[in-house]
Amino acid sequence: MSKTVCVVQDFLNDAYKDRIRQAAAAGGFTVQFFTSAEREAAKACIRDCEVLYAQIPDLLRAASPALGWYASSSAGVDAYCADPALFPNPDCLLTSANVYGVTIAEHIVMVALMLLRRLPDYTEPLRRHEWPAPSLIRSIRDGNFTLLGTGNIGQNAAQRLRGMGAAKITGVSRSGKPHPAFDEVYPIARLDEVLGRTEFLISALPGTPDTIGLLDGRRLGLLPWGAYLVNVGRGSVLDQTALRQALDSGALAGAALDVSTPEPLPPADPLWDAKNLILTPHISGNLTLGYTCDENVRLFCENLVRYAKGEPLQGLVDRSRGY
Amino acid sequence: MSKTVCVVQDFLNDAYKDRIRQAAAAGGFTVQFFTSAEREAAKACIRDCEVLYAQIPDLLRAASPALGWYASSSAGVDAYCADPALFPNPDCLLTSANVYGVTIAEHIVMVALMLLRRLPDYTEPLRRHEWPAPSLIRSIRDGNFTLLGTGNIGQNAAQRLRGMGAAKITGVSRSGKPHPAFDEVYPIARLDEVLGRTEFLISALPGTPDTIGLLDGRRLGLLPWGAYLVNVGRGSVLDQTALRQALDSGALAGAALDVSTPEPLPPADPLWDAKNLILTPHISGNLTLGYTCDENVRLFCENLVRYAKGEPLQGLVDRSRGY
Repeated sequence: MSKTVCVVQDFLNDAYKDRIRQAAAAGGFTVQFFTSAEREAAKACIRDCEVLYAQIPDLLRAASPALGWYASSSAGVDAYCADPALFPNPDCLLTSANVYGVTIAEHIVMVALMLLRRLPDYTEPLRRHEWPAPSLIRSIRDGNFTLLGTGNIGQNAAQRLRGMGAAKITGVSRSGKPHPAFDEVYPIARLDEVLGRTEFLISALPGTPDTIGLLDGRRLGLLPWGAYLVNVGRGSVLDQTALRQALDSGALAGAALDVSTPEPLPPADPLWDAKNLILTPHISGNLTLGYTCDENVRLFCENLVRYAKGEPLQGLVDRSRGY
Repeated sequence: MSKTVCVVQDFLNDAYKDRIRQAAAAGGFTVQFFTSAEREAAKACIRDCEVLYAQIPDLLRAASPALGWYASSSAGVDAYCADPALFPNPDCLLTSANVYGVTIAEHIVMVALMLLRRLPDYTEPLRRHEWPAPSLIRSIRDGNFTLLGTGNIGQNAAQRLRGMGAAKITGVSRSGKPHPAFDEVYPIARLDEVLGRTEFLISALPGTPDTIGLLDGRRLGLLPWGAYLVNVGRGSVLDQTALRQALDSGALAGAALDVSTPEPLPPADPLWDAKNLILTPHISGNLTLGYTCDENVRLFCENLVRYAKGEPLQGLVDRSRGY
């Protein structure tokens, strides 16, 4: 097996490549770079490499048991965990890049304000060049927010909501372990009681066997009348039919989905026409912000140095747990 | 002259009316309440009253020299200052309600994120049920913001941008007096040099003889290529033709106007079709948020007690200066 790092990424400029080459050289590795359009040409390199830095699960089908570490540049790794046979070497390490907290938190604040300030009310009148009267609105100030997921995304969102004057910020996580960004953190087992007093629910949950279908019709029904919902995690967490019914009945005053099942959402899906729904095409956390790209490369280089030394990696995924 | 307070407002619930009655009684006043739909019926009361709490400049045409104080529930009072003959008593006090900072700051953060995250790129594809690829974006974090106007609105916006990680927040005011919400405050006389290093310009300026036409084509041209502009103050500050040209050429990467000249914007105005423009129908600061309504009534009641005692009023306007 060769000490080769294979990189298949579209966002790398020359400065990023230089940083990766330096980190690789420090660990005795050589690097080959490919874009996603060059994935066929990358296969020979993937077959032989020890480290693969990419965000395309299918590339693993070209890998050999020589692969010791797949560094995902994405945060969500559900596609890597769903099929154990995907990894040719069962002991291959998988890391996720938890560097999307800032950009996703900014997305959360944006859509929270769009919903609370009733922006969907104005869309059609303004399109007709009309000048609609103002709707009654709510504010982040004095609001009561619950975040499902208290990691990098949840913490960054909580800090920003706090800075905007939110009255109460509750976290919900697997363990319920307290964190200073949240007033309280509950274990997911107590989700139902938290929902009953949540005015604004934000899910940043990954797609795992434990979270799929978590926000079903029954749980959406536990939210107070007129609550709001944002999903920036994985579409599989939410029952979209139940969501549509809750929106159309007014039980939910609005929702913003950046993720859906499936993606892209089919053109004829009835969700497109749900009332008070803001749909975005999975744009909350991408390699489209300079800061996120910087952090992604920084994390990979730090981990590459650790890997070369045999030290524990940051963002290591438990593939059986799914994150 | 009778010790009467005439109130012409649409947002007052019974609790608000009780608070106003109590404050009035404490000062020896009686109160009559009308809605804007009852303005004809209100005229007899307006003719006779000493205090008028309203937001319709035309009501002053029914007032007599007995009117000692017009309490505007709006923040912008340009319509009251434009015509000195509007006040039947030249010594009549005018106060503005500077209680819109929170709601307007939330609007500013919302549209700033919508612009920086390139939401207008997605509008048309999503309307066709397509799933567009993500655009390159920018963030509030590490951004460089300039606020024209360092009062209640500017301070609230600066605090929120700071909480989102903005790198630099510059204020511009008449005096240039420092304020802790801003890294630096410049006098308006030095506006041109500030514009040259402003990535994101936000105007919360009132419409006064000094501000009309301030953001003309020459000054917009001083902004760096690809800058963003938000106007939540008065439309008269901005040259809309120059703005449209700057947007269409790409000199400005985007703009969000909540105010325009005139309002409503005529259906055939070319501004409707400017590139990367987010138009909203003067909804950033209205009596549509509970908190703003609370503060409006609180301020009026405090001022009513002060007025009855002959003490200075909060938010007193210099009509010749325009704010």
